[in-house]
Amino acid sequence: MDELLKVAPRPTGAGEMFQLLRDGRPRTRADLAVVTGQSRSTIAARIDALLASGLVSPSGEASSTGGRPPSTFRFNPAARVVLAVDLGATHARLAVTDLAGEVLAEHAEGIAIADGPQAVLARVVELGRRLIGEAGRSVGDLASVGVGLPGPVEHSSGRPINPPIMPGWDDADVPGILGRALDVPVLVDNDVNIMALGEHRTQWPSVDHLLFVKVATGIGAGIIADGSLRRGAQGSAGDVGHIAVPGGSDRPCRCGNTGCLEAVASGPAIATDLAALGLDAADGADVVALVRSGDLEASRAVREAGRRIGGVLAACVSMLNPSVIVIGGQVAEAGEHLIAGIREVVYRRSLPLATQHLRIVASRTMGRAGVLGASAMAADHVLSAAAIDSLIA
Amino acid sequence: MDELLKVAPRPTGAGEMFQLLRDGRPRTRADLAVVTGQSRSTIAARIDALLASGLVSPSGEASSTGGRPPSTFRFNPAARVVLAVDLGATHARLAVTDLAGEVLAEHAEGIAIADGPQAVLARVVELGRRLIGEAGRSVGDLASVGVGLPGPVEHSSGRPINPPIMPGWDDADVPGILGRALDVPVLVDNDVNIMALGEHRTQWPSVDHLLFVKVATGIGAGIIADGSLRRGAQGSAGDVGHIAVPGGSDRPCRCGNTGCLEAVASGPAIATDLAALGLDAADGADVVALVRSGDLEASRAVREAGRRIGGVLAACVSMLNPSVIVIGGQVAEAGEHLIAGIREVVYRRSLPLATQHLRIVASRTMGRAGVLGASAMAADHVLSAAAIDSLIA
Repeated sequence: MDELLKVAPRPTGAGEMFQLLRDGRPRTRADLAVVTGQSRSTIAARIDALLASGLVSPSGEASSTGGRPPSTFRFNPAARVVLAVDLGATHARLAVTDLAGEVLAEHAEGIAIADGPQAVLARVVELGRRLIGEAGRSVGDLASVGVGLPGPVEHSSGRPINPPIMPGWDDADVPGILGRALDVPVLVDNDVNIMALGEHRTQWPSVDHLLFVKVATGIGAGIIADGSLRRGAQGSAGDVGHIAVPGGSDRPCRCGNTGCLEAVASGPAIATDLAALGLDAADGADVVALVRSGDLEASRAVREAGRRIGGVLAACVSMLNPSVIVIGGQVAEAGEHLIAGIREVVYRRSLPLATQHLRIVASRTMGRAGVLGASAMAADHVLSAAAIDSLIA
Repeated sequence: MDELLKVAPRPTGAGEMFQLLRDGRPRTRADLAVVTGQSRSTIAARIDALLASGLVSPSGEASSTGGRPPSTFRFNPAARVVLAVDLGATHARLAVTDLAGEVLAEHAEGIAIADGPQAVLARVVELGRRLIGEAGRSVGDLASVGVGLPGPVEHSSGRPINPPIMPGWDDADVPGILGRALDVPVLVDNDVNIMALGEHRTQWPSVDHLLFVKVATGIGAGIIADGSLRRGAQGSAGDVGHIAVPGGSDRPCRCGNTGCLEAVASGPAIATDLAALGLDAADGADVVALVRSGDLEASRAVREAGRRIGGVLAACVSMLNPSVIVIGGQVAEAGEHLIAGIREVVYRRSLPLATQHLRIVASRTMGRAGVLGASAMAADHVLSAAAIDSLIA
């Protein structure tokens, strides 16, 4: 028996069986025996262990053609809670959810990410404890924390790597700081990745290829391919904000290059364009307010930003062939102008095979995409087959 | 018991167990019992079924600390053969391999893809039958056929979709035509996807994120992400040849747009540039010959093409964060000039996190990448867990 064989996982253990129950539907022991190919006695022992953990609960009786009706069991998402944290450059949104992403308590407030990790994460811990209480639960019920950050994150370590709009956060040990305060596993990812996950899980669960694009202070994308989030080798996949815009521009970007998409189509970039025309715009919120007030210059500028984004997304469509592109982030709140500009260029610049079934739509979860995705990431971690196996071993 | 439960697969059946053996290493029944968590009697029955199929064979005895040493078993890749077909615009390469991709017989010749599917595929059948004989096998040993085509393919149907450089092939029933002649399953994919698969399986099996870029009559890419080929919603993922080149150009492309990468950096595009300088170049082969003869204008033109490709690949690096980019195809045979141009722009235009561990290298399998990938695709299909389960049911 060599090392490789020793560490190989045992399939269809209790953890693997639990994955079948995560859809929330009640099943009998016989149902589970058929699906897993395991013996009735093995199934019975695993159900007992899962019942003891609280993660599975009895859910009544199945219909029967005679004799005593068999008991059914299902996933109990209320067994534990997770803390979901979505940090932006200037805002924080936190939610306490159950293990199926149901929001139990929620809070949003303005922050300055530039205050640095110690100050910002101390506030996260304070708010998280308060929300757990508001949800009627105790800190002992907390299973894990999911965090989205507005910059590149090395997913394996949970640390931000040279984040351009997060001064003081480079290589900060976010999982360590939050983990010491809350004593549970902490998962960290780029904010756009968790927004993609949140939108995909809650709005497009049957779509296998989806691109989520956030247009705000920064511009970034999260990639769902073959049903799963794809992070790339260092976790920086989807970093479309620093792709050079086709057609060119010399405007300097904070990354050190020139002509990046973020430098010409983000909220602040549009505001700069409008300020140069004499309008009162300093950031993305001002741009959205101007568009909503009916300002034609602002609408025109947002549409032009959409075209620039469309130029980069046309390349992404050729590269990834998604069937849905979801546009979210603050600037998307300006309404149809942004998406109209994006559609104009993507449909002109891509091959027919890639666009014939392509939909380009506005985010449906809007401001909530991040916390819903952070919740899913945190719950996935503690409910994985391996985590369940070690929990009930 | 509802419909969903009825159709769910049984894990760790014989097919699943067979996947453990595909690495070619000998294992005892006891080894397999430990890894799968199945009983010794279940394992023994499955081994018997796999021995009867010929896909598994006895491989001697394990060492023993006393008593009769236990028998070992391993995958027998010689049980069947597959036909691997790599069709380009002007060439065909065919190989007969065993089920592990070992080439048993091989042939390459010039063809004209524009002769259409009936003529080209009839030649494929003729050559395939001859190669099976040369390999010392009979047509009855053929398990499946894998085909790469130089254009977009709808992977689910195996049909080319509006392929720009394959006149007469739109919606051609390639699996039907070859399947009727050879009476086995036929898998079809874009030639670049199978080249990516061939290079990944044989040269970079432990790399999870790899981009294979073919620079020839056309330009395209195959994407390996999280260890698997990603085809996108309609199978057109990786179609980088029709992305607009940053910096712009008005040169018309055969796709109907202008300024596509393929229009300014493919073999014929470089040849056009050189012909305008008075050099004798009509296609990519002429370009490679000129570079090899030491022509400085040709080397300069190939390097400039590399820079244009690098501009598009910089966007792909931001989007996908691969750890290896492999450059193949005819123009890559011109040597270091192409890759030097690519590296120059990719390392300048991408964020540090995405490039710090990025390698950009020449294909090691070169002309053989396609047939090696077609062989892997064809073998994977007949050796999947589901295929094995139905074979020995």
